[in-house]
Amino acid sequence: MTGTERRHAGRPRSERAGKAIVEATLDLLAEESGVAGVSIEAVAARAGVGKTTIYRRWPSKEALIVHALGAVKEPLPEPSGASAREDLTAIARRFEGDRHRRYSRCFWNVVGGAEKYPELYARYRQEVIEPRRDVIRKVIRRGVDSGELRPDLDVEVAMSLLLGSLTAKRPQETFPEGYADAVVDTLLRGIENAPQSRPEADEGRFSAR
Amino acid sequence: MTGTERRHAGRPRSERAGKAIVEATLDLLAEESGVAGVSIEAVAARAGVGKTTIYRRWPSKEALIVHALGAVKEPLPEPSGASAREDLTAIARRFEGDRHRRYSRCFWNVVGGAEKYPELYARYRQEVIEPRRDVIRKVIRRGVDSGELRPDLDVEVAMSLLLGSLTAKRPQETFPEGYADAVVDTLLRGIENAPQSRPEADEGRFSAR
Repeated sequence: MTGTERRHAGRPRSERAGKAIVEATLDLLAEESGVAGVSIEAVAARAGVGKTTIYRRWPSKEALIVHALGAVKEPLPEPSGASAREDLTAIARRFEGDRHRRYSRCFWNVVGGAEKYPELYARYRQEVIEPRRDVIRKVIRRGVDSGELRPDLDVEVAMSLLLGSLTAKRPQETFPEGYADAVVDTLLRGIENAPQSRPEADEGRFSAR
Repeated sequence: MTGTERRHAGRPRSERAGKAIVEATLDLLAEESGVAGVSIEAVAARAGVGKTTIYRRWPSKEALIVHALGAVKEPLPEPSGASAREDLTAIARRFEGDRHRRYSRCFWNVVGGAEKYPELYARYRQEVIEPRRDVIRKVIRRGVDSGELRPDLDVEVAMSLLLGSLTAKRPQETFPEGYADAVVDTLLRGIENAPQSRPEADEGRFSAR
């Protein structure tokens, strides 16, 4: 974050303009009118640039919004490949920190407006959300292949349990300390009690870390 | 649904008015302006009733909205107490059917507007959401007490995994066949492979059903 700011002073003019345009888009998108309030005109006025400067990079309002949303989401950490447990924990922790109150409104407004702006929503899914989900899918599939995860696992169901618990949070609420780790641990071990098997299973799990 | 409609013809006038008011509230709330578009005046006009008829039952716009949202959510099935697996599956299946496209916009608009209308959102949480979460908490706690679920379980984490996977769904998407059952089964068993323990654990699980 500070690194980014430090670099900022030395940025060329076109990069500064690009950043101002993205910020203006997010500001407008976070307002109550949401997608309806974002127009190339409004973004240009707010960013202090000409409309041509925007159209030179983004052919449409939809392209601009999707780009801005993608710029907000930090990329998921590159899976180390050491174990599914480690990789899923690293990913889950990223969601803990991925909460910027100002930006969460932007996402609500786009997802909540899916019915009214289906093409925008589809692009957002395809360009911002699916690549992130693919990272998680790959970690889970690799865990199945390595034998760490159950061979009969439904990858989509496993991903939905993990992602749902990390994204379906109440607005304005932060996760309790250690939440991401607890979610991954609970998902890995399951909630069912299996008294006969627990000691061996535990041993296997900890030695595998 | 047909049962409800059949009863409708015989309803007394005040009940019909109440229903019209609730419907008008949901219609307005589902529109893009969301909470901002709901006012006692607008609801009265749309429902074809006088403002007094509304104020007689609901002291404020917030009370009316929360009541209308509560009327949409079907109550969760009464837990049978037979097993956590059965009760959680019955609850999860209810979420499968709990998708009314028109109403989902209402919920998005209230949750997405949490920052702007914090009191409305808090009441909605307290009067509509928390009672449903309490049903799930009780099922999980009972499972821990009976020994079916792990004694060291974090109830909130387990509930968040279950509910997240059932509610953080993409808009306009229906669950695949058997999704609710798969979610509960995956959550109960966990996704980790524990080869030494699997056979005994399976036996225990199936005999416990």
